[in-house]
Amino acid sequence: MAYSAPLSDYDVIFRHVVPLAPVAATETFAEASEDMAQAVLAEAARLCEDKLSQYQRNGDLHPAVLENGVVRTSPGFAEGHKAIGEGGWIGMSASPEHGGMGLPMMLTTAVNDMMSGACLSLQLAPLMSQGQIEALENHASDALKDLYIPKLISGEWTGTMNLTEPQAGSDVGALRSKAEPDGDGTYAVSGQKIFISWGDNDFAENVCHLVLARLPDGKPGTKGISLFLVPKFIPDDNGAPGKPNSLRVVSLEHKMGLHGSPTAVMEYDGATGWLVGEAHDGMRAMFTMMNNARLGVGVQGLGQAEAATQTALAYALDRKQGRTPVAGGTGTIVDHADVRRMLAEMRADTFVARAIAVACAQAIDMGQATGDPAWTARAALLTPIAKAFGTQTGMRVAETGVQVHGGMGFIEETGAAQFYRDVRVTAIYEGTNGIQAMDLVGRKMMDGGEAMNALLDEVEAHAEGLRATLPDLAEPVWQASETLRETVEALIGTSDLNERFAGAVPFLMGFARVLGGHFHLKAAEADGADSARGRLARFYIERLLPEHASLLEQSRAGAAALYALSPEDLAS
Amino acid sequence: MAYSAPLSDYDVIFRHVVPLAPVAATETFAEASEDMAQAVLAEAARLCEDKLSQYQRNGDLHPAVLENGVVRTSPGFAEGHKAIGEGGWIGMSASPEHGGMGLPMMLTTAVNDMMSGACLSLQLAPLMSQGQIEALENHASDALKDLYIPKLISGEWTGTMNLTEPQAGSDVGALRSKAEPDGDGTYAVSGQKIFISWGDNDFAENVCHLVLARLPDGKPGTKGISLFLVPKFIPDDNGAPGKPNSLRVVSLEHKMGLHGSPTAVMEYDGATGWLVGEAHDGMRAMFTMMNNARLGVGVQGLGQAEAATQTALAYALDRKQGRTPVAGGTGTIVDHADVRRMLAEMRADTFVARAIAVACAQAIDMGQATGDPAWTARAALLTPIAKAFGTQTGMRVAETGVQVHGGMGFIEETGAAQFYRDVRVTAIYEGTNGIQAMDLVGRKMMDGGEAMNALLDEVEAHAEGLRATLPDLAEPVWQASETLRETVEALIGTSDLNERFAGAVPFLMGFARVLGGHFHLKAAEADGADSARGRLARFYIERLLPEHASLLEQSRAGAAALYALSPEDLAS
Repeated sequence: MAYSAPLSDYDVIFRHVVPLAPVAATETFAEASEDMAQAVLAEAARLCEDKLSQYQRNGDLHPAVLENGVVRTSPGFAEGHKAIGEGGWIGMSASPEHGGMGLPMMLTTAVNDMMSGACLSLQLAPLMSQGQIEALENHASDALKDLYIPKLISGEWTGTMNLTEPQAGSDVGALRSKAEPDGDGTYAVSGQKIFISWGDNDFAENVCHLVLARLPDGKPGTKGISLFLVPKFIPDDNGAPGKPNSLRVVSLEHKMGLHGSPTAVMEYDGATGWLVGEAHDGMRAMFTMMNNARLGVGVQGLGQAEAATQTALAYALDRKQGRTPVAGGTGTIVDHADVRRMLAEMRADTFVARAIAVACAQAIDMGQATGDPAWTARAALLTPIAKAFGTQTGMRVAETGVQVHGGMGFIEETGAAQFYRDVRVTAIYEGTNGIQAMDLVGRKMMDGGEAMNALLDEVEAHAEGLRATLPDLAEPVWQASETLRETVEALIGTSDLNERFAGAVPFLMGFARVLGGHFHLKAAEADGADSARGRLARFYIERLLPEHASLLEQSRAGAAALYALSPEDLAS
Repeated sequence: MAYSAPLSDYDVIFRHVVPLAPVAATETFAEASEDMAQAVLAEAARLCEDKLSQYQRNGDLHPAVLENGVVRTSPGFAEGHKAIGEGGWIGMSASPEHGGMGLPMMLTTAVNDMMSGACLSLQLAPLMSQGQIEALENHASDALKDLYIPKLISGEWTGTMNLTEPQAGSDVGALRSKAEPDGDGTYAVSGQKIFISWGDNDFAENVCHLVLARLPDGKPGTKGISLFLVPKFIPDDNGAPGKPNSLRVVSLEHKMGLHGSPTAVMEYDGATGWLVGEAHDGMRAMFTMMNNARLGVGVQGLGQAEAATQTALAYALDRKQGRTPVAGGTGTIVDHADVRRMLAEMRADTFVARAIAVACAQAIDMGQATGDPAWTARAALLTPIAKAFGTQTGMRVAETGVQVHGGMGFIEETGAAQFYRDVRVTAIYEGTNGIQAMDLVGRKMMDGGEAMNALLDEVEAHAEGLRATLPDLAEPVWQASETLRETVEALIGTSDLNERFAGAVPFLMGFARVLGGHFHLKAAEADGADSARGRLARFYIERLLPEHASLLEQSRAGAAALYALSPEDLAS
């Protein structure tokens, strides 16, 4: 696969659509100048284009396997992971105190987008380490930080998240893993965890597991859960990996895709662990990691959408079939109206997913740098949208990419099918898209709509300002935002949370449609209506934005018609 | 996989939604009484539930392979195919003259739905034979009919369609395969064909290929193409398979799914063939086969949607997770609003796809029995909708089915992932869904909208009649139909075909949404608003029908904004 980093998109996004400037203007991120950002992205682009993209097919054709208790990773993955670590890409946003670069999440988001597009199954490894670093930075003791974070940043050690158990998926509070004090400040952790991404590998010196478990005096439910750091090898007095811990990979899952990423069943049998954060307060620490990872997974969907779009466009520009209706055109299928439509939808929605992810990262950065709760609330609001819309876009774009390829799309050798299979899990892990949508209409509405309305104020003020110069683009965006505002009000007026849950997913997708109009309008404003971005904005606003109406109508439909349908009614 | 045939759906559909009675009232199908239909479906249900469903996983886990030039099929497929043939299911709608049962396509459609749901990759074999039988019945010489059709019906021999070549996919006219007269009434057929479903197998005595090729005096393009019957073994004087023909399977494709169905690259090297139909008139004969197959493929999508829905519902009814909001409910995830929503969408759209397929079959039957061109036009109109909406529904429902399973959906052992992979090709083969949509707004509008308006007259008259008794269900259906009617008028008023093509796919999907409202309304009328079907109708009309508005808006957007986007604009 020839992968090309989307530098042009990041150029317009960082300058105009979701500007980097306010972040660079803070003391925290003073180094993140426009020049610096360009240099960082260019360097990451080289890594992704020249190196990581080579491994994309390897991971699929030669999956990670478990041999005599040892995970053997796909050809090239060790080398690829080493390059990612050595380039500093794992610790981009980590604090310089432990060897990180201290760069804004906006830049990390761009780089994660590129790495995901180049080789998703490999990129999942550093993404897990990034989440672990952030959890440790915020909650671990200084001793743990000093020992683990530099190794995670360099890529010599890798990190994993251990939440799920067979009976505890979306309902984390149902977990049964236990931890007993050892009397020496460590804990003996026991239990089985499933779906552990990159649960082991053969290229890191150590694999560090963050494991949720319950202490003897932990209450039932989420409030009795604690978080433990459980390394594969117990560090010796010099901090080097010492004797093996009492844990093992029981098996690897046989998955539909993402074969290069070993998904493990892990068994902990009195393994030595260190408490991270306060006892019984593990969920708070885990949420730090999960919020980071949620944006990261949304970006995975986006990265796959980018790669699928590029692959489909390249195929369409090469494939000749039938008489094309464009005089002086390419003579390839890209000139057929329906193929052009598919590619335009793919490109337009990839841009939306990217802008939403960057806007979420910007809010995280501004919240961190300024402490302004309005930014923190913005980040919290955008996280579920970035995750669910990014991954939904990844799925939809990959599906359309297969369609552009026609029969060849169903044959594995084109790579189009791999995107379709690999990206499917992103809508599920790190909280299913349904869970994200429930978060959006539940927790994220607990402020009475303040954060949402603040965002819609911006959307509408911006559209207002363009009514004179870009009337036919600005007006539909303003109208759509008004419809969304009314929907927010209607949902908040519904005290029964389940009434909202019944329409949560269409609400989230409708919200993203409106934000898409806003971001496309900003791009059109930046480059002009007659530019490539102006034309893409017009396509989006005329053809995709209208979907917000039926989505928001669905979101207001409530739970009555749904629960009127009994499970028996749903049998055929 | 435990598969359960959707007999209850067929009961209400055949009695009320798309009644069998008018078909049974014709002389041609006088035998197809309600009792007869019930007996046939019950027998087919037993075959699918008890036997065919066993093979679904086999095909995926043990794909068909090519060994030393011989295709070895998946375990059990030989036995399964034998049972299908012996049960008479291949020749259900074939003429009794050659051993068929002469039953309406309405019943064949129901049985194909069930067989597709039980084991898609196996069912594709008899589907190909059914298409070949119909092509031979309509276009072959009596000698060919007498020799081949009884063997195809019994399943002793199987049939394939050979259209595609590397440079000739959607553009069939670009094919290069050649046929030279042998001087003895036969022809020497040479060329390479790709994507040949069930191109060979190890259970039939003979494999009969219908091959499109050009005679020496054939013009370029589709008007110079002829159709040839080219058997794997040349029948001897007794009609038994004799010496091998000059053809071979070069390779089998490595596909994303449908592994049980061998997809072959075929090489013909002066193979002996017999002309089917007139010289240079092969496309007409092939279209007979393709139209049959298009409905058949739509039904494949539908069958997979049914199976994916059943699998997801069974999982949801078993899986406990989190506190559910329904007092006295099941205590399983089916009681979570978003899970209930997903299952309701799956069930509601599966019903729509089924009703549309049966309506298409009814029109075929009525056209055949009465010769009334209005029925023939109705069949032609509904064929692309049945194909594209059926397969789109298959894709969407399978995708949602994976989501209902959460993390388990990405693991192959649940079977949810197999539906997602297998069904993907149905939106591509037998004419991509884009091709179907172009047919709908192109050829199927050449009557000035007569067939479409006749259908919408029925939809609106029916809704009108229910305004008093089911006002909140009937009114939205009537309104949606009016919007569709205006859209039809607008598109027909557009003389540039490419303006229509630019919105063809959303038009087709919007059309299906409106038909879905109509059929759900009929079901609600039959069983009452407070019945399971009435509740499902309300869910569909409140939540899914509204999508017609944005789809039809997209369909009217025209080509300007699309072609304003150059291929360069679509690069990131």
